Amino acid sequence: MQLSSATRMLSAAIAEAERRGVIVCVSILDAAAWPVAFGRMDGVALGCIDVCNKKARTAALFQMDSADFAMIACPGGEAYSLEQTNGGLTSFGGGLAIRDGKGAVVGGIGVSGASTEDDIAIARVALAALS
Amino acid sequence: MQLSSATRMLSAAIAEAERRGVIVCVSILDAAAWPVAFGRMDGVALGCIDVCNKKARTAALFQMDSADFAMIACPGGEAYSLEQTNGGLTSFGGGLAIRDGKGAVVGGIGVSGASTEDDIAIARVALAALS
Amino acid sequence: MQLSSATRMLSAAIAEAERRGVIVCVSILDAAAWPVAFGRMDGVALGCIDVCNKKARTAALFQMDSADFAMIACPGGEAYSLEQTNGGLTSFGGGLAIRDGKGAVVGGIGVSGASTEDDIAIARVALAALS
Amino acid sequence: MQLSSATRMLSAAIAEAERRGVIVCVSILDAAAWPVAFGRMDGVALGCIDVCNKKARTAALFQMDSADFAMIACPGGEAYSLEQTNGGLTSFGGGLAIRDGKGAVVGGIGVSGASTEDDIAIARVALAALS
Repeated sequence: MQLSSATRMLSAAIAEAERRGVIVCVSILDAAAWPVAFGRMDGVALGCIDVCNKKARTAALFQMDSADFAMIACPGGEAYSLEQTNGGLTSFGGGLAIRDGKGAVVGGIGVSGASTEDDIAIARVALAALS
Repeated sequence: MQLSSATRMLSAAIAEAERRGVIVCVSILDAAAWPVAFGRMDGVALGCIDVCNKKARTAALFQMDSADFAMIACPGGEAYSLEQTNGGLTSFGGGLAIRDGKGAVVGGIGVSGASTEDDIAIARVALAALS
Repeated sequence: MQLSSATRMLSAAIAEAERRGVIVCVSILDAAAWPVAFGRMDGVALGCIDVCNKKARTAALFQMDSADFAMIACPGGEAYSLEQTNGGLTSFGGGLAIRDGKGAVVGGIGVSGASTEDDIAIARVALAALS
Repeated sequence: MQLSSATRMLSAAIAEAERRGVIVCVSILDAAAWPVAFGRMDGVALGCIDVCNKKARTAALFQMDSADFAMIACPGGEAYSLEQTNGGLTSFGGGLAIRDGKGAVVGGIGVSGASTEDDIAIARVALAALS
């Protein structure tokens, strides 16, 4: 995950949030879950900073979207308590795995601050900016 | 959140607890969740100290009452696992967002030690002392 | 350490800080290093919150003033590295042990935000308010 | 600290690092030490991520440059052990307080990855981009 790619994703996410009239923070991690880029729009609830990081971390570490992770890692799910590993993960949408042209996971992006639906949509727009 | 305002809230909370014949501890944080004032009445179970801090922290960081936070952050809620972000949050009542005259969040107050019902009522009395 | 005593100390400390024209935060812990009362004056650097807590903690846990603790717990001191125990202690002045009429330690007070000299003087005024 | 200002500082820092032929990561926090923007150039040693965060945190929480903080917080300094408060601070250069037009601290910037001399120079260029 190069900084130039992460910056492009970050700009696309923020532009999409502005277009939707919402405010979010965005975290982009590499495949090893180390931070590459981060931005917080003015006025986002501070609790969302950790949430967007954990969404991106969930996606990178388990190579799946956090919404899919939520299906298995919740009370009653087949891997209940999985969400409590790795320092705490996020069992709802807004974290997406970032893949290269061959499908290999190269990082994760997490968006938080708006509705879960908006967070997911914004993350998808950011991913699309990579191709 | 000025110290003079926080002190007024703290005094009101403790007076209300005495009126109800219960004992509590009270934490008042600013909008960035940094402590402004704290008081623990004699005899409160020590575990409640962290609880009142986390209640206030939940309210400040997500700009909502901890009882409302509980509706979305718990197992089965739309954002299950949200309660495990930000160092651990509190999914039950007794934490209230403190707002200025224009509705902007300027801090959070958490009360713990009595029943949740009493904790909430005491926090509300403290908030009322601000206006 | 009763809340009424802690509140009296806190008020005395803040009045003394105002008299000196400085701003501080003040932490008062019981003999087991659990918080009893805390207040932060408007404008204190946020890093001082943890510092005043650690000063009070140092005084309570080792039953000595943090300035005395500093003589033994520093590089070259007879108990170097002691300052790194108990989650990190404070090796400079501004933390005082609180004693009852018979000399038994009942808590600790920490003051931070002004010069170390002022911090110490303010803590002493607070102690004097107890007798 | 607005995102637009932070983004401007971040871009200026990275451009200056490129001009000097070094690689760094840059963290920009608000006055309460919450993240606003972050970027890591390709190839920076991963350990520098926490370092740049702690530099910015030191500057914001104590309202001074981390190089000045180092003079008082280190072994032999008047506030030895201060560097161990607040989750661990940074006693060397590369963290600068960000001030508004009236001199009030509105955040902190930390740069890490190059020599301390380069880190400091890059942070200064970023600050200059604000005015």
